[in-house]
Amino acid sequence: VSLAWIDGTIVEGPIAIDPADRGLALGDGLFETLCVLGGVALWQGDHLDRMEQAAAELAIPLARAALEAAVAALCARSSGGAEVLRLTLTRGVTARGLAADGAAPHLIATLAPLARVSFFRPLTLAVASIRRNGWAPSSRLKTLSYADNVMAARQAADANADDALCLNTSGHVASTTVANVFAVIGEELVTPAPGQAILPGIMRKAVLALAPAIGLRPVERPVELAEVATAEAVFVTNSLRLAAPVTHLDGRPLGRRRLDHLTGAIAEEIRAQSGRDPRLI
Amino acid sequence: VSLAWIDGTIVEGPIAIDPADRGLALGDGLFETLCVLGGVALWQGDHLDRMEQAAAELAIPLARAALEAAVAALCARSSGGAEVLRLTLTRGVTARGLAADGAAPHLIATLAPLARVSFFRPLTLAVASIRRNGWAPSSRLKTLSYADNVMAARQAADANADDALCLNTSGHVASTTVANVFAVIGEELVTPAPGQAILPGIMRKAVLALAPAIGLRPVERPVELAEVATAEAVFVTNSLRLAAPVTHLDGRPLGRRRLDHLTGAIAEEIRAQSGRDPRLI
Repeated sequence: VSLAWIDGTIVEGPIAIDPADRGLALGDGLFETLCVLGGVALWQGDHLDRMEQAAAELAIPLARAALEAAVAALCARSSGGAEVLRLTLTRGVTARGLAADGAAPHLIATLAPLARVSFFRPLTLAVASIRRNGWAPSSRLKTLSYADNVMAARQAADANADDALCLNTSGHVASTTVANVFAVIGEELVTPAPGQAILPGIMRKAVLALAPAIGLRPVERPVELAEVATAEAVFVTNSLRLAAPVTHLDGRPLGRRRLDHLTGAIAEEIRAQSGRDPRLI
Repeated sequence: VSLAWIDGTIVEGPIAIDPADRGLALGDGLFETLCVLGGVALWQGDHLDRMEQAAAELAIPLARAALEAAVAALCARSSGGAEVLRLTLTRGVTARGLAADGAAPHLIATLAPLARVSFFRPLTLAVASIRRNGWAPSSRLKTLSYADNVMAARQAADANADDALCLNTSGHVASTTVANVFAVIGEELVTPAPGQAILPGIMRKAVLALAPAIGLRPVERPVELAEVATAEAVFVTNSLRLAAPVTHLDGRPLGRRRLDHLTGAIAEEIRAQSGRDPRLI
């Protein structure tokens, strides 16, 4: 059911890869997940900017034109429904040694229908014992090294929650395994600041930009777990959930202040980009 | 030049993989690196034990018989020289969602000649700003999520050192990006304890077991960076370096107490396993 684009070529089914490719061997690479609606990749420019900047930091060669070509090639084959487009960049094969440079990175893109649309869908969280490492680049870049997120998500599933809420190594709130976290406290929209071991999410940025228009003052700062537990509303953001209310944390109900203004503002923004209203999908 | 074994089949060149395989997409899997001498995989039982235990912790199905078959198939094709055998386990393809279980994991093994033999070869270290996360399983399991190790190794290379010395998130010494660390202090052989964000290395275990026979008392405990800087000797261990003296840390010379007894004991152990003396390769 999924379609792949590799280094300029469209393929169906498995791809051919060197078993020594560092994406597979070492999680040495990056990815992006874009929501596609009506053949349009939402917030495309922001996603490609983030991947370009992260590739520069990891010193993996990446041409913007290749990213644009991958997205265009797959969007041209869109079903027109709700889909997920994933971009994966690997360092490719190098000489032995973790510090070795690669001359032939690989860019892989896939497009697949969203089997289960989760736009704005409420969810529950459980605090994980696994923490995000404020001392490491993997906590703020979307690298292929997601094993700790996988294990934190499994902890949450074991606790019958939909996702894990992860603290950082300083003990402050960071994010879930796949989403940023926001708390509505009075007239403030509070979210962990950059430097708190968070991925700088594209939806996070969009929500911060929309906040003033819905009467909330955006505040990025260290956040205590107790503030989340007692906030008037808590929600998480990512490209596939958009802004999803959190109903329970560790089984305890959270504040239920309504988020209709926010949901409406995000839906309008998406309609402007794609012509589709995500509330109707 | 390298040979691969995938789920029971020997292949040369690239392998076919689903782009959604979680080994490639999320670093969701494990690996082991074994040194092969004269067609014999050194400390094979210990390596397979570690991978089996880690797979159980990650809940990735893995049959011991498959591991044994992979090693046997590749060792049967050994050149007889010094080689590296790598085992890679991926969770395979799953439904969407980080916590999803996979029904079809993949076991990939490769055998390649060791282009540059580094047994016992002295090296230099530089302290990295990137720290190993004591709150995360990736710091003690050999997962495919090595991006932070890659970035720490790149920091070391930028500082003209051979590898990075990483502290843990408590500020104690953990390990290099690919090796355990030992300090000789008086009659003690000191190394960071389990729980200090270290991978429990196979060579580390072998060296701890050999210590009494060479007149050193093995001590596993938290280790301060200052203790390494002032020790009589510092060395690192892994399957391809065996026990390699560290000559400089951040450009400053370290203690130079000779390690001949240790080198000799390790070489004897390897000769007993493989019939080859690693000092002569």
